This record gives sequence, C-alpha cells and structure tokens, in this order.
Amino acid sequence: MEKIWPAEEFVSKERYYRRDFFNTLPGVKNLQLIGTQGENGIANLGLFNSLVHIGANPPMLGFIMRPLTVPRQTYENIKANRYYTFNQVHRGILDAAHQASAKYTKEQSEFEAVGLYPQYTNLVKAPYVAEAKVKIGMEYLEEYEIKANGTILVIGKVIEVILPEEVISETGHIDTAVLDGVGVAGLDAYYGLEYLGKKAYPRP
Amino acid sequence: MEKIWPAEEFVSKERYYRRDFFNTLPGVKNLQLIGTQGENGIANLGLFNSLVHIGANPPMLGFIMRPLTVPRQTYENIKANRYYTFNQVHRGILDAAHQASAKYTKEQSEFEAVGLYPQYTNLVKAPYVAEAKVKIGMEYLEEYEIKANGTILVIGKVIEVILPEEVISETGHIDTAVLDGVGVAGLDAYYGLEYLGKKAYPRP
Repeated sequence: MEKIWPAEEFVSKERYYRRDFFNTLPGVKNLQLIGTQGENGIANLGLFNSLVHIGANPPMLGFIMRPLTVPRQTYENIKANRYYTFNQVHRGILDAAHQASAKYTKEQSEFEAVGLYPQYTNLVKAPYVAEAKVKIGMEYLEEYEIKANGTILVIGKVIEVILPEEVISETGHIDTAVLDGVGVAGLDAYYGLEYLGKKAYPRP
Repeated sequence: MEKIWPAEEFVSKERYYRRDFFNTLPGVKNLQLIGTQGENGIANLGLFNSLVHIGANPPMLGFIMRPLTVPRQTYENIKANRYYTFNQVHRGILDAAHQASAKYTKEQSEFEAVGLYPQYTNLVKAPYVAEAKVKIGMEYLEEYEIKANGTILVIGKVIEVILPEEVISETGHIDTAVLDGVGVAGLDAYYGLEYLGKKAYPRP
C-alpha cells in the first residue's frame, strides 16, 4: 500500500537506517573501483557508485566525493597526481570490490589486500584493475564543493579507454550485461543486469 | 580481446557513435521521470538518468542537466517553481517513460501525450507520476555550472517520499528489484535487475 511521508519524519530514525533508506531511494547505480597512486607509491583502490556522464565531446565524467571530514585517500591522490582510473565492477570481482571499501591504512594497498592486480599504461599515471573489463583513464579537470553539506563533485577528462573491442556495437553502444556488469542500490545491495533492449528514438 | 584506445581516437567518430559510446561507458544508471509544473499550468515530464545521492541528513539529491543551449522545460520550471519530483521508472511504465523523452512543445503535457496520470500532494507543488512506485518530492536548493562544457548539477532537498511501506526493510533498505525498477545504459539501452544480495560491512 502506497504511503506518503514528509521527509522530516526520517530525521528521528536511527543513523544507519536513515543512511540506507536515502541511499537506496534513487534506485540502481553503477559500481566502479577508482584506482589512484599515493605519493608513497602505493596503489590505492576505492569503491564508488556515483559516476555520472558530463559530456561526450570532449569526453568528461564526474563522480561524487563524500565531505572531507575524514581523510579521503582517493581524493588526496587525485589532487596530488591528477590521474585516476574508473574500473567497472563485474560479478567475477564483486567480492573483492566490496572488500576494497574497508578502511585500510595509507600504507596498505587495497590491491594486495583484496587480491586484485594493478595494470599500468604509458598514458595514465594511476593503476587500473587488470581484472576489470571496462577501464577508463582519467585526468582531473575541476571540482565543485556543494555548499549545503561539503560533498564534492569531481570532474575529469577521459584520456584513455580499455575494453574488449567485440562488445562495442556498430552504433557505439557498450552492452554492460554481456560484460557481467553489476549495479548497486545504497552502499551494499548488489544487482545483476538483464538486457531488455534498445528503444528507437522517440518522436512526438 | 582487450584493446587500449587513447580517447582522442574517438574524436573523429560520427557524432551519434561518440555520444552512445561515452554515454554507455559508465555502465548502468537509474532512470527517473522528473515531474514539473510550467508557468502555464501544464504538467511536464522529462526522462533523466543522472540522479546522485548527495546526503542523508538532511536528505539531498542531485541530477545533471545538459547545457542550456536549447530550451530545457524541466530546468525552466524548476527555476520558476522551485518544486519537482523524481519518479522511478519500472517495467510497467518503461515504454511511456521512453516516449516522454520526445521533444514535445511547451503547450503539450507529456502526461497526456504518453498516457500517465499526474498526482498531487499538499506539500509539493509539482506533479508526481501516479503509476510510479517510488516517488520523491524535491525542493530546489543550489546549482553548479561545470565550466568545461556548461552542464549543470542541480541540487535539491528531499521534502517528501511516496512508496509502498512493505518494500522498506527493517534496516531501511528499499529493494529496487521487487519494485520492478529498471536501469539504463546510455540514453536508450534498458536493463532489468536481478537482486544478488546485501554484503556485510567490510573490515580490513
């Protein structure tokens, strides 16, 4: 039965209830491991679910960084190095990806801790996840701090892409389902994908 | 076979190929109809795939608006009225939702054109989609224009939520799959969801 709640009724809810409710409210989101290189040379991984398309020409992507109220290694590394990678999570690396979101210290590489391999190219000075199937090499461009709560939108330029050539269709579409891509609702509820098809361009 | 491309190799590709490639690159995204009210009183709908979580306390959500190089009714209505609604798309309304993304004139309501019903509450001065199962009432807060290409991040406060009470778990999680929620890759490739489960909080 449909029910209407004013949002303020959730203010009194327990903190984790509120977090999970409002995080699952938007529905499914993509799931990415962001790879960065620390100034100490240690390869770092962070799990993110907020990748958004900003533009195709030039190609740009954005993601949301939680407020800097605690140390954020991914953010610090991006600001120090300017390079980072998005690595799409698929079913085969889901357990490792989830584990990579644990609070490891700066001296510990999530790659080693969760059993994933770093992969490097000439163009991007940050580690990719070798086991990922869709990898995007990024260079930092700009950031915007949201006044209301200190959350940060980080914008970067796509400078390299790595993926299996055969999954790109003639029209340029990449099919996430054949790559076993997963989605996430909230922080910890995961979803597999069933391709429903591509719809024709709609006209009034 | 994995292949590495410098992003600049895509510059010479045909415009729609480039658009679909870079839009499908991030993987699956949530799919929402945004409901707004025009100054002429006409109920408007727009299809968006860029809803991001900004904060849980107070609850805030953001979405990405394409550059204002052409008239954007959703944006104009939000700026004029300050209220708008997110309506999660599910399989039962997917065809209508896709059709709502056609270029209708300002004088034509997408609700009427695609056969969806507007629903109003006392708190929110914008139409919800009656047939949606998860509906979020929003009030405009702030916006950020991305310098690199004029794209806009619109931030709002959640002021009301409407959904079936029984889909909220004890922990506060909403299960998008039981609601038949769909995801989208790019602008027109749709996905159903298969729940894979919730993982425990990871510790090093």
